[in-house]
Amino acid sequence: MKFQFSFKEYDPKAEAVYGTILTLGNGHIGIRGEVELEPTIHGTTVAGVYDYTPYFYREIVNAPRVIGLQIFFNGEPISLSTQKLLKYERELDIENATLTTKIDLKTQNNGRIHYESLRLVHGKKKSLILLKFRIKVSEDGILTVISPIKTNVVNPSYRDEIMVKHLKVKDMEDKEEGIYAEVETLDGKYRIGIASSLISETTAKRISTKSAEGIAEVLTLTVKKDRTYEFVKYVVVLSSEIPNLKESAFQQLQEAKSLGFDKLYDEHKKYWDEIWKRAKIEIDGDKEAEKGLNFSIFHLVQSMPIDSRISLTARGIHGFGYRGHVFWDTEIYALPFFMAVFPKKAREMLMYRYNNLNAARENAKLNGYRGAQFPWESADDGYEATPSLIPLDMTGKKVVRIYTGEEEHHITADIAYAVELYYKLTGDEEFMSRYGLEIILETARFWASRVKYDEKKGYIIEKVIGPDEYHEHVNNSFFTNLMARYNLILAAKYFEIAKNSGGEWIKTLERVNVTEKEVQKWLNIAEKIYTPRQENGIFEEFDGYFDLVDYILDPYDFGEERLPEEIKENLGKTKIIKQADVIAAQYLLKDQFDLETIRKNFDYYIIRTTHASSLSMPPYAIVASWLDYEDLAYDYFMKCAFIDLYNLYGNTQDGFHLATAGGVWQIIFRGFCGIDIHNGEIEINPKLPKKWKAIRLKFFFRESLLSLEIRNDTVKVKLLQGRDVKIRAFGKDSVVKHGEEIVLSK
Amino acid sequence: MKFQFSFKEYDPKAEAVYGTILTLGNGHIGIRGEVELEPTIHGTTVAGVYDYTPYFYREIVNAPRVIGLQIFFNGEPISLSTQKLLKYERELDIENATLTTKIDLKTQNNGRIHYESLRLVHGKKKSLILLKFRIKVSEDGILTVISPIKTNVVNPSYRDEIMVKHLKVKDMEDKEEGIYAEVETLDGKYRIGIASSLISETTAKRISTKSAEGIAEVLTLTVKKDRTYEFVKYVVVLSSEIPNLKESAFQQLQEAKSLGFDKLYDEHKKYWDEIWKRAKIEIDGDKEAEKGLNFSIFHLVQSMPIDSRISLTARGIHGFGYRGHVFWDTEIYALPFFMAVFPKKAREMLMYRYNNLNAARENAKLNGYRGAQFPWESADDGYEATPSLIPLDMTGKKVVRIYTGEEEHHITADIAYAVELYYKLTGDEEFMSRYGLEIILETARFWASRVKYDEKKGYIIEKVIGPDEYHEHVNNSFFTNLMARYNLILAAKYFEIAKNSGGEWIKTLERVNVTEKEVQKWLNIAEKIYTPRQENGIFEEFDGYFDLVDYILDPYDFGEERLPEEIKENLGKTKIIKQADVIAAQYLLKDQFDLETIRKNFDYYIIRTTHASSLSMPPYAIVASWLDYEDLAYDYFMKCAFIDLYNLYGNTQDGFHLATAGGVWQIIFRGFCGIDIHNGEIEINPKLPKKWKAIRLKFFFRESLLSLEIRNDTVKVKLLQGRDVKIRAFGKDSVVKHGEEIVLSK
Repeated sequence: MKFQFSFKEYDPKAEAVYGTILTLGNGHIGIRGEVELEPTIHGTTVAGVYDYTPYFYREIVNAPRVIGLQIFFNGEPISLSTQKLLKYERELDIENATLTTKIDLKTQNNGRIHYESLRLVHGKKKSLILLKFRIKVSEDGILTVISPIKTNVVNPSYRDEIMVKHLKVKDMEDKEEGIYAEVETLDGKYRIGIASSLISETTAKRISTKSAEGIAEVLTLTVKKDRTYEFVKYVVVLSSEIPNLKESAFQQLQEAKSLGFDKLYDEHKKYWDEIWKRAKIEIDGDKEAEKGLNFSIFHLVQSMPIDSRISLTARGIHGFGYRGHVFWDTEIYALPFFMAVFPKKAREMLMYRYNNLNAARENAKLNGYRGAQFPWESADDGYEATPSLIPLDMTGKKVVRIYTGEEEHHITADIAYAVELYYKLTGDEEFMSRYGLEIILETARFWASRVKYDEKKGYIIEKVIGPDEYHEHVNNSFFTNLMARYNLILAAKYFEIAKNSGGEWIKTLERVNVTEKEVQKWLNIAEKIYTPRQENGIFEEFDGYFDLVDYILDPYDFGEERLPEEIKENLGKTKIIKQADVIAAQYLLKDQFDLETIRKNFDYYIIRTTHASSLSMPPYAIVASWLDYEDLAYDYFMKCAFIDLYNLYGNTQDGFHLATAGGVWQIIFRGFCGIDIHNGEIEINPKLPKKWKAIRLKFFFRESLLSLEIRNDTVKVKLLQGRDVKIRAFGKDSVVKHGEEIVLSK
Repeated sequence: MKFQFSFKEYDPKAEAVYGTILTLGNGHIGIRGEVELEPTIHGTTVAGVYDYTPYFYREIVNAPRVIGLQIFFNGEPISLSTQKLLKYERELDIENATLTTKIDLKTQNNGRIHYESLRLVHGKKKSLILLKFRIKVSEDGILTVISPIKTNVVNPSYRDEIMVKHLKVKDMEDKEEGIYAEVETLDGKYRIGIASSLISETTAKRISTKSAEGIAEVLTLTVKKDRTYEFVKYVVVLSSEIPNLKESAFQQLQEAKSLGFDKLYDEHKKYWDEIWKRAKIEIDGDKEAEKGLNFSIFHLVQSMPIDSRISLTARGIHGFGYRGHVFWDTEIYALPFFMAVFPKKAREMLMYRYNNLNAARENAKLNGYRGAQFPWESADDGYEATPSLIPLDMTGKKVVRIYTGEEEHHITADIAYAVELYYKLTGDEEFMSRYGLEIILETARFWASRVKYDEKKGYIIEKVIGPDEYHEHVNNSFFTNLMARYNLILAAKYFEIAKNSGGEWIKTLERVNVTEKEVQKWLNIAEKIYTPRQENGIFEEFDGYFDLVDYILDPYDFGEERLPEEIKENLGKTKIIKQADVIAAQYLLKDQFDLETIRKNFDYYIIRTTHASSLSMPPYAIVASWLDYEDLAYDYFMKCAFIDLYNLYGNTQDGFHLATAGGVWQIIFRGFCGIDIHNGEIEINPKLPKKWKAIRLKFFFRESLLSLEIRNDTVKVKLLQGRDVKIRAFGKDSVVKHGEEIVLSK
């Protein structure tokens, strides 16, 4: 695989979008792609570092900028906006996870300056950032390179013009080995220690500066014209779980410098080589699709948390969008990729939910319920982080009320669903018996307290928001009711398994204190939970939906711009929906529906969906491929695979759309490959777009690593490691054994 | 007079206080005193430029920083925090309104750098700022001086960590004559155009840079050791009432540069010479008091608005305190100084109120009243700008409710009071007949709609806050009821005068549409307005005050720190008051009380006042001097005169306490000199502190300029210009004629 993404036009306005798509990261650190020679508001993302903020409860902190450089030549500050830009080339190499920049400038005194750099956020050494750069000038003179740790960074708030400074500077020190800055969040919960050292290949005079803006190293060199001067900047960023922050930072910096750039770069490349061996997906016959797909996978991998203190966030380590909060995006859209490709990482992300189970219990109690209710938006502490209102004007007098935090309750069932899916795919009993079970039981308990009994309808769930957020305060959301039922059934099922399994399973039952009687109650609710009415086979999204004003949309278009003003202002009164809702439920709970029912519902809802949420197209695409709506499935797949590269939703600057990226992988896995798990057997039902000849991918199933080549008429499966796996395709069953390959044909 | 204020210790934390007390300004432009070589959040104040902001409605905008410099020597950035500081000397010369800075630094390469500068905000040329500086280095090398217009400035908001960016950059241009930046407030209401040029005495290479941070000129010089290199920075700051902003800015810049620094400096010194000829007050026998007094006057003069678009703000052109809002501070505390010394300026400040009379009418209507109700806090548009709540924590979940905007209604009577005082002092009939009368009538109309009739008490005013803000929602505040009554009586009095005067007077009556019947009603209300009960001669501050918990305080101390925690948390339930309230009324309405009643009230309230407001001590000091409480009067005078120099209230960093500064002048004028106006005659009743031998001051009375030397046993009065003035002192009457001096003795 060799995937490079090049950009050759410099436009200060477009930089914010490049900032996201050229982000480099390793789960712990994220560095956005803005060019290092220009100022930007974006510092560094340190995953898991949050602080209190107006309206959004807690938000990911914009940590000090460490990648920036300021260059002066003969007293002239060198920057893209100052000098005439002769050449601008940036290239993201996703194979090696590097970003190169090449810039030629004409100085105001008619000289030439060539600058090129290679940037990486080290894959293996999670705290290390490297920037190697070369400078060549067309006249003799004095070159000054300032390499700052810029501590006076801020977060943009509910308006870009309102900013929040989250960090106090606790320490700034200049030592022979490099400079150091330590900052602390305002709430005192986190510290970040940063050590940095700029090394010049040629002898240079070195001093340091400290100011309200931060600390910087300054190298000054007497340079000869047309010679190339090379520098390496080493940066170590540690967050405060490390004891002796400063000592450790300097130590790691020292280690990195003794190894030197080349060895570290090799190690980084090797790390990514291993990643791609596992995560890469090849598509024969459609290189464009393959590029977008692996670009999505690249950014998912970069955002993969290093431990369970934080989970994957909606916009990754890439930006401030959704404030670094964790949504159902993670469990329903992104996690299946990790479960199949990096199952240990998936486990950690679920452990994040487990670690916050007490907060979810408090949350349920606060809202008058029992068990555990997960927050719609979750930050580092697991409490509800959804804003309840956001000001629309500067004075704060006009506000918009946000109800998702109070009403979008399906998240709790979504997490239980993901726990079970993880167990189904991985067979990780250690997790399931100890942690997963507890989540499933406590969330079932929540639903049992959340439902109400209605004489006519049975158990109902009132006043919710389903995935379709255009309709608030609705009763009996199809998605919510069905997912809640599924959650209750799961709890009963795993209660039975646990009861009969002993060991950790039983201990968990005892700890959670679940009785047979309670489980009976759950089953009773599950049985009698109300399923919204069906008309001509079509399920009503929620009570009363069928009575709303109808409006038909072109399924090949997306967004709200196309709607007439009066519709746009009254969306809640129409049948128009924001995103897959009934279809999302039918995707997740596929086995509960026959294909013809799914088709009827799909045909009905697809022409009433704006896809204004980036979460809409993936489930529709998967179901479309099941229904052999190949064109639509392909169209949605391509839109999703290029959502950020083409900035299709116009908000790529705020971070990468990781739910969509996870969705892209699921379209491949569940849609085009048609992979499903039934009774411990992998079923494959290929639905490749016509021009695709083959899809080659690898994934884990219960610790067995499989390599597959899927065509519309043949499926080849190779077992690379682990125990035998049962495979079913084209109505045929087979078993693949270690080191063997099997072929199943139509 | 020769007053210099020197500071020789550099402390980054103290810089914020120096920032305020070393502010230079000319009413239009304010430049805080932070040293130009270090970054600071403070840009430039351009009086009258406001923008919408969270909680505070509209706030004064932090305009681009223009005074900053960045210096590099041989590639080494030169700053106080980077190099070893060998010498730091700053001197504010209030005689010439200049700030000099002398800095010696040892570079990290053991070189020496000497920097010295002279800064001024031109007194006469209201848009001009000059910075002349010299640099000397101890080795040969390359010197780079960057002179930026830093456009990426922000305002700190309700917490320093939350910032608001008010300005969009509309234009940045580099021309041969200099650089230019134009910014616009977010609301689109104001533009600021800034042209700047840095001139080196020695040949220098010049380039310019543009970035997200602003535009900058960069001069690079090859320098020889031990030679002094001199530079002059010219800056022109225009706000958008000027047409052709850019053209005008460059034109003014060009004019300034052709005149050159020396001529401009001479003109500036002459301007201040004229100011001091009139405004200076000499105290024989107490040079310290004289220094503090004239320091206060200096900052009042610097804040004097250049036209009536904005009035004097609570913290001047000196900082962001109270967001640049205008309070009763202006009319009651600061304006008397301007009425007596710069009467034309006082008129403009009252015209600011007149210009916002329609907003005050709307405000009254909005609150269910008639006439005109002035807002407690007023910004550029005259609408209520008091926050109704302010968040106490980052998430905004804990808030403090602020009731002053809804309840502190006395401001409306205070403005009417100031209008009459202005007329009494200046005899400005043109103002009074046309504008002042309209204010007095419309404010009386407000009070007539504000009172309620109570069978027992007569006309009452419920639910207000008096000057003592510890007690909210009180009924029949002594201060408020008496000032309201005074307002009604004034209206009736000037209605009579107007009726019998014809011309503009009558036109105003017609415009405001006041009838005899309405005036009769006002008089009826005034007659029957309830005066809070009196016990042993002491007036109750408001209904029920006497029933509160008592607590006695040392009158020589001030602030809330000394209070026990349980008292501090329940101030509203105690008799403790924040500031002069009953006594403030007795000061303002002196003629309504005999001295013994005032003494009883003073003795009672003085030991129950925390003086937690900087507005408290001036009225107490004046009344203390009337009561021959000389020690206390002197103690308060000195505290007030040094409030900011010694940062007594701990918030000098937010701006200068202009109400106190005005109060300091009033203690001299009304207290120690004992000056009062009765029936067009000036009464003088000296009460000089023992060690003071004489006070010499000048002021205008009805266009006559008087020069006085006041001793405890003699009063000398000279009439410098204008018509004869009647003088009364020591029980003797006299008349001073043009060019003559009279002496009255005990």
